[in-house]
Amino acid sequence: MQARIQVDPELIPGNSERFKRQVEFLLEIDRLKHTLRQTILLDRSRQENSVEHSWHIALSVMIFAEYADLDGVDLCRVIRMLLIHDLVEIDAGDTYCYDEQAGAGQHERERRAADRIFGLLPGDQAQDFRNLWDEFEEAGTPEARSAHAMDRFQAFLHNYFTQGQVWRQHGIRRQQVLRRMQAVERGAPLLWDYVRTLMDDAVHKGFLLP
Amino acid sequence: MQARIQVDPELIPGNSERFKRQVEFLLEIDRLKHTLRQTILLDRSRQENSVEHSWHIALSVMIFAEYADLDGVDLCRVIRMLLIHDLVEIDAGDTYCYDEQAGAGQHERERRAADRIFGLLPGDQAQDFRNLWDEFEEAGTPEARSAHAMDRFQAFLHNYFTQGQVWRQHGIRRQQVLRRMQAVERGAPLLWDYVRTLMDDAVHKGFLLP
Repeated sequence: MQARIQVDPELIPGNSERFKRQVEFLLEIDRLKHTLRQTILLDRSRQENSVEHSWHIALSVMIFAEYADLDGVDLCRVIRMLLIHDLVEIDAGDTYCYDEQAGAGQHERERRAADRIFGLLPGDQAQDFRNLWDEFEEAGTPEARSAHAMDRFQAFLHNYFTQGQVWRQHGIRRQQVLRRMQAVERGAPLLWDYVRTLMDDAVHKGFLLP
Repeated sequence: MQARIQVDPELIPGNSERFKRQVEFLLEIDRLKHTLRQTILLDRSRQENSVEHSWHIALSVMIFAEYADLDGVDLCRVIRMLLIHDLVEIDAGDTYCYDEQAGAGQHERERRAADRIFGLLPGDQAQDFRNLWDEFEEAGTPEARSAHAMDRFQAFLHNYFTQGQVWRQHGIRRQQVLRRMQAVERGAPLLWDYVRTLMDDAVHKGFLLP
């Protein structure tokens, strides 16, 4: 992996350590564009990367907010949460949600990544980003539950509308997807109906094992 | 270009036309992941696409908001504006900012694209997205000016920190970048100092023609 870009402090206005850290963080997160997911683009030309996924689910909030459980929810917080939720993958990589072996060390890997990556920012911003990430991980607030629902919903649609290419490749069963999609049931109950209908149809059409 | 994905209305809960349009929009915007920009990733491995750029500048708002001219600015509106500002490129493609010939028909191409793409959404959401896009294009509000500043600032940093590879390839001169960067001066005056310093340094180091 290429070394982290260090910014020349001599060129920073007022030699501000704060500004230097902010620029270095912005440059560092460019790396997430290289993290490939186990989801493919809808034209099946290639894998999606984690930045593209993050953008797509932030847009999902703008479109599907009305179906999420949103009484008093701060939508902007959901969007910000989704924009940063995968940054830890710069160090920890993407873990396929149905790979139980890789899943075992995932939380510890991602926690260490969060320490390093958010720690590049000035203290107050590091804390702000870390709080957003912790909140997403803990899934205890309505904002975090809506975020998880959008995260799962977009990936599900990509799998369904590419005729389950990745599901079939990994021999995924209905029961596994059903368990994974409980986040949609919890965070966006009205989207859940659609997911369940498509899941049945996917089994019927051979995109997904029964 | 692959045909637009049409969703089977029979599988839509309650046969809702509104929901069908929303899902089709979410699927359609996947295409923006194929639109390549005249900017490269920091490790110079490939061109950046418009989705990656949109995500990166939305993150820039979260990091650099304190330097923008933000009295009473709705930050969430700036983020939403940036997330959708390039959607028109699905039809209109990316126009290189220093290509005057291509720039000539750009506005009309993008306006037609906005009609078609935002028009896929249900009426109220189509209007909401279109308003955001028009506001960005017109650059008349503090939100839109901050958005433009972030848009330019990220691209500038990528050019500088890849030793002006794309600038050199196109024989770009300091005066052209200076003109383009006036959006930073207007929208985020405190970032402007840094841009000007790096621009001088870029000329000094041969990344940019004098």
